[in-house]
Amino acid sequence: MAQARTRQIGSPTNSLLKVYRRALATGTTREGWLAVEGPFLVEEALATAPAVRTHSVLMAESGAVKFARLLERLPAEAEAVQVPDRLFEQVAQTQNPQGIAALVELPPHSLDTVLRGQNLLLLVACGLQDPGNLGTLMRSSAAFGASALCTLSETVSPFNPKAVRSSAGAIFRLPVLAGLAPIELLNCLRAARVRIIAADRHSRSLLDHADLRCSVAIMVGREASGLPPEITREASLLLSIPIRPGMDSVNAATAGSVFLYEAARQRGFKY
Amino acid sequence: MAQARTRQIGSPTNSLLKVYRRALATGTTREGWLAVEGPFLVEEALATAPAVRTHSVLMAESGAVKFARLLERLPAEAEAVQVPDRLFEQVAQTQNPQGIAALVELPPHSLDTVLRGQNLLLLVACGLQDPGNLGTLMRSSAAFGASALCTLSETVSPFNPKAVRSSAGAIFRLPVLAGLAPIELLNCLRAARVRIIAADRHSRSLLDHADLRCSVAIMVGREASGLPPEITREASLLLSIPIRPGMDSVNAATAGSVFLYEAARQRGFKY
Repeated sequence: MAQARTRQIGSPTNSLLKVYRRALATGTTREGWLAVEGPFLVEEALATAPAVRTHSVLMAESGAVKFARLLERLPAEAEAVQVPDRLFEQVAQTQNPQGIAALVELPPHSLDTVLRGQNLLLLVACGLQDPGNLGTLMRSSAAFGASALCTLSETVSPFNPKAVRSSAGAIFRLPVLAGLAPIELLNCLRAARVRIIAADRHSRSLLDHADLRCSVAIMVGREASGLPPEITREASLLLSIPIRPGMDSVNAATAGSVFLYEAARQRGFKY
Repeated sequence: MAQARTRQIGSPTNSLLKVYRRALATGTTREGWLAVEGPFLVEEALATAPAVRTHSVLMAESGAVKFARLLERLPAEAEAVQVPDRLFEQVAQTQNPQGIAALVELPPHSLDTVLRGQNLLLLVACGLQDPGNLGTLMRSSAAFGASALCTLSETVSPFNPKAVRSSAGAIFRLPVLAGLAPIELLNCLRAARVRIIAADRHSRSLLDHADLRCSVAIMVGREASGLPPEITREASLLLSIPIRPGMDSVNAATAGSVFLYEAARQRGFKY
């Protein structure tokens, strides 16, 4: 691909810099494009093109040489912008800015399309508040071949910058459906004959005794309060991870990951 | 148990407050006692008495009523100290201080004693830097019946306040051996006929094909760089988690937890 021309910006009031600053703080632009920071995530975005479309890359001057090869992989229509280091630091949101950021557009995903698949494995985050945990769940979902990760309303956004960082690029490789209404999701799952399984630490039915080879949606709740009753009530199966008596639970991201591992194991790790 | 008398302290220069302030920032006192914050961890410490010994509890004035029942469970020899709220906030290290902290002494554990056990399941953190990940691994280790969690030198301290919080009290229930020298640990493991298993994402041997029912030590490395070569070289088996092709890896705490789950599963979850 031809290398995009690099535009220089020196003014802190430049409108693109304002877009970057806001988007890096909140996670997304008004158009819904994702803002990502650091060479790892920018590389991941470029590696998942053309499904993921990189609109622009913002770079600190001192990174020009270091990121030259990365810029070579920019699609021709993408804009490359260079700013003085102190300006980049003002725009960046991470504690140790690594001199590069990008605005990228994720492929459009819909629940309808996801539910048309076979042998579905869905992870549904119901009320999770910790972005690191949600990011870890996106990463595990992609690793264990989940069909999609869904979040209900009142759950931390998967586009939250910390969630995106913790996903380690999985957000580019996995359909992520955010902020779904619980009742609608449950109805769609039932219509698609997806078995609704609640991860419930108090259940006497054990994870390893259940058959997870058919289409399943695994509902994972908040660390402290667990799943909301409207979810557990509608689940066809409540399952707990068999842990040592006297121990309360494992971390929410660990619990979801162990469910996904067990499902993938039963399916023979055929992805 | 008789309720301990509550001492009032009003001076910020009081020596016990200085001890608390330093210990809550670093994790431990000079004597090696652990400093914990928040009602959950203080409750957990009291719940694991007498193995875990609570030396003192520090409380904000406004918490006197709320924590009255918790104080009733204090052993008679422990000291209860009450300070004005603004003083507690100065001493506390968490963003939203919850009005209670304690200094506790963990039971002494030695590698020798741990290695005298049968069917050992050890998790060894080799160079992990993220305290949240290490805390999550302590929690999973306790949940999946690990015999102990060890950390090598150059690994974040398990007594780091964030690691302790992420352990959700598991640090009170699990032998934790910190800062071991790699060569000595490997020698001790070999002498005790514990199989050394390296979690290595590049290995073609898959976790679910390995027999983890005999005594094993699972070596888990850093997120970015993996295990140091001196560990992989000495391992009798390198195992990877079978993940979807094209995906790089799962989070380090997730990887360790999945190894522990698989070992516990193969052992029939008999704890």
